[in-house]
Amino acid sequence: MATGNPTLPNLLPIDGVKIAIVSAGIKKPGRRDLVVFELAEGSCVAGVFTKNRFCAAPVLVSKEHLSKGSPRYLIVNTGNANAGTGEQGLRDAKATCDAVAQCYGVSASEVLPFSTGVIGENLPMDRLLSAIPTTKDALVADAWVDAASGIMTTDTRPKGASVSFEYQGHSITLTGISKGAGMIKPNMATMLGYVATDLAMDQEILQALLTETATKSFNRITVDSDTSTNDSCVLVATGKSSAPAITSEQDELYGLFKEKLQTLMITLAQAIIRDGEGATKFVTIQVENALSQDEALEVAFTVAHSPLVKTALFASDPNWGRILAAVGRANISEFDLNKLEIYLDDVCIVRDGGRATDYTEEAGQAVMNQEDILIRINMASGDASETVWTSDLSHDYVTINAEYRT
Amino acid sequence: MATGNPTLPNLLPIDGVKIAIVSAGIKKPGRRDLVVFELAEGSCVAGVFTKNRFCAAPVLVSKEHLSKGSPRYLIVNTGNANAGTGEQGLRDAKATCDAVAQCYGVSASEVLPFSTGVIGENLPMDRLLSAIPTTKDALVADAWVDAASGIMTTDTRPKGASVSFEYQGHSITLTGISKGAGMIKPNMATMLGYVATDLAMDQEILQALLTETATKSFNRITVDSDTSTNDSCVLVATGKSSAPAITSEQDELYGLFKEKLQTLMITLAQAIIRDGEGATKFVTIQVENALSQDEALEVAFTVAHSPLVKTALFASDPNWGRILAAVGRANISEFDLNKLEIYLDDVCIVRDGGRATDYTEEAGQAVMNQEDILIRINMASGDASETVWTSDLSHDYVTINAEYRT
Repeated sequence: MATGNPTLPNLLPIDGVKIAIVSAGIKKPGRRDLVVFELAEGSCVAGVFTKNRFCAAPVLVSKEHLSKGSPRYLIVNTGNANAGTGEQGLRDAKATCDAVAQCYGVSASEVLPFSTGVIGENLPMDRLLSAIPTTKDALVADAWVDAASGIMTTDTRPKGASVSFEYQGHSITLTGISKGAGMIKPNMATMLGYVATDLAMDQEILQALLTETATKSFNRITVDSDTSTNDSCVLVATGKSSAPAITSEQDELYGLFKEKLQTLMITLAQAIIRDGEGATKFVTIQVENALSQDEALEVAFTVAHSPLVKTALFASDPNWGRILAAVGRANISEFDLNKLEIYLDDVCIVRDGGRATDYTEEAGQAVMNQEDILIRINMASGDASETVWTSDLSHDYVTINAEYRT
Repeated sequence: MATGNPTLPNLLPIDGVKIAIVSAGIKKPGRRDLVVFELAEGSCVAGVFTKNRFCAAPVLVSKEHLSKGSPRYLIVNTGNANAGTGEQGLRDAKATCDAVAQCYGVSASEVLPFSTGVIGENLPMDRLLSAIPTTKDALVADAWVDAASGIMTTDTRPKGASVSFEYQGHSITLTGISKGAGMIKPNMATMLGYVATDLAMDQEILQALLTETATKSFNRITVDSDTSTNDSCVLVATGKSSAPAITSEQDELYGLFKEKLQTLMITLAQAIIRDGEGATKFVTIQVENALSQDEALEVAFTVAHSPLVKTALFASDPNWGRILAAVGRANISEFDLNKLEIYLDDVCIVRDGGRATDYTEEAGQAVMNQEDILIRINMASGDASETVWTSDLSHDYVTINAEYRT
């Protein structure tokens, strides 16, 4: 199941990015499961990666290669995460880079590898290596939609977003794709994401932009509180637009671009929640007037991770007592229970330390019947606010994750 | 569903404790849903209560009354938690105490009220108050088994344990009952528990014993990470045994009694997990050689709360990658990934930073097919150990919690 509009919008090509999607048969024969991005020379690349200590072999190699300079190729396989695979996993990730480097005449450190899928199995290197040369003839500029499908695992739909805007007569384009449906919990971009623009940019600024916008998008979503070992998000600036390069945060274009990028990143992140494993609801949890950002996040994620809140959402049950109980166990400093307010959309459910006197079950039920639900929590103890997005806990979540390997 | 032996053992009466179970029709007509414990004059009582900030009205009143002296009556209703009910809830809890006090000729502060069931609805006071006088004729000594049934909510079976032992020719008896199946997460005894002994004891020692043994039992279990608003555990010492009173931790009898009490408390706590909502597995998570107790608990609970680990357990799937990923995201200080080891019972699944080379899927599968499973995690970074107990995440958990109010 999934929520919202299943249609992928038109994804604009980015000058300087070519994409190939081929079949390596990693997990299923015939599945187009291998994606290569070719980035024009001079492209600038930034990345953010999982904070799980058991980060997968491709994450380790990508981080190392990214630290050495600007990559020219990204290679992504689905069906196998190459995680928890020890030394053999590292050798396999490096051999993958070697094969891409040989195929395209670059050095192995100019290749970033990415893997997603089952944890703990070795990559089928023979099939992977024999598929890499077939990517060369498959490279085309306008393949973002196919790439969005190529990186899927338990996703039920491809995810992507695109925006084009003008600046002083110059056209600037920004396109991104993401994947992820389970093992989704913020601690870095808990998924795979590839975003590119034709704008020119300094590497430090690109990295700072990615880190900041990922924090407010991919690090604000949760399906099941489980942090993947393979999460990675990459932002590419090819510099092919005629617009002036961004070389400083003082540049006028910086603020404009950042706003567009943040919107696109939130769209990609929300798409993951809309396609959350077994999702029947899209839930926004907005915590206001908390003592600090950290406390606002702690309250929001405690509610978002509560299995009892999530099953009540699945049942469209306005069981506000479970929301209240989750807020009550959040690990934050003291606050005044009698000032706290909780709303379902505009319906106040908790006020003065208990059920709001004007609350009616009918009003609560009407909100819970919706597919999109806003839970708003006013802590009345400070001025910090945070928003996170989550899905419900349904039978399909259990089915998908109980049967994933069978 | 539930795991383990469903049969309640023989529960020995405690001299000085009488119990009445009657029907107040709180939620369902005819259900025997109201339990009164009468404690002999001179009994000593200790209590531990939920740390959820939204503690329910009866918890607030019980804490207040307990601070004023030794209670003579405990009254417990199921079907309604009287939580999130604001001022009205407090008035109702106090009115309940008043009615018991009037019925039995004691003061209201000698009564502790307890409620469990749905959150956010007011108690049906008319039905409750008219049932209280009927408890008087129902008081008997040998009713622990019926009381264990009387306090159930989504429990599928009553829970209790009993032990009798000799000390220098004196017989000492200890009996306890507990209830709880969902909204189970340690932060104080996440359930209701009533334990009594005929031993005589100082109040400070009784309270310290309860706090310490609850920490290692009820505070080490989790079904779904949700902390209830109503959790309470009470330990009563009636002093009717001919054995010498415990007046100091130096008393010889102190160590012996503490050991018996800890075993009984763990039995009651484990019974809650065996009857965890939708449980098909009983899982022990043992973290060894951690830097500190706190870090050992953080790792254990991160694994215990992982929906992906819990669904894999439900599927009997030896998906050790999910255990590894959960350990990897635990919020603890650095540790050496290459020294960490993870075992399923005696089968090593993770060693040297990846899958143990001698691991076979068959060996892992054999353990996962069991109803009782031990996950042992050797952090190899210190000498602290902790053990927690949990259940799996099944379709029945979703069904039970999606349909609880319907």
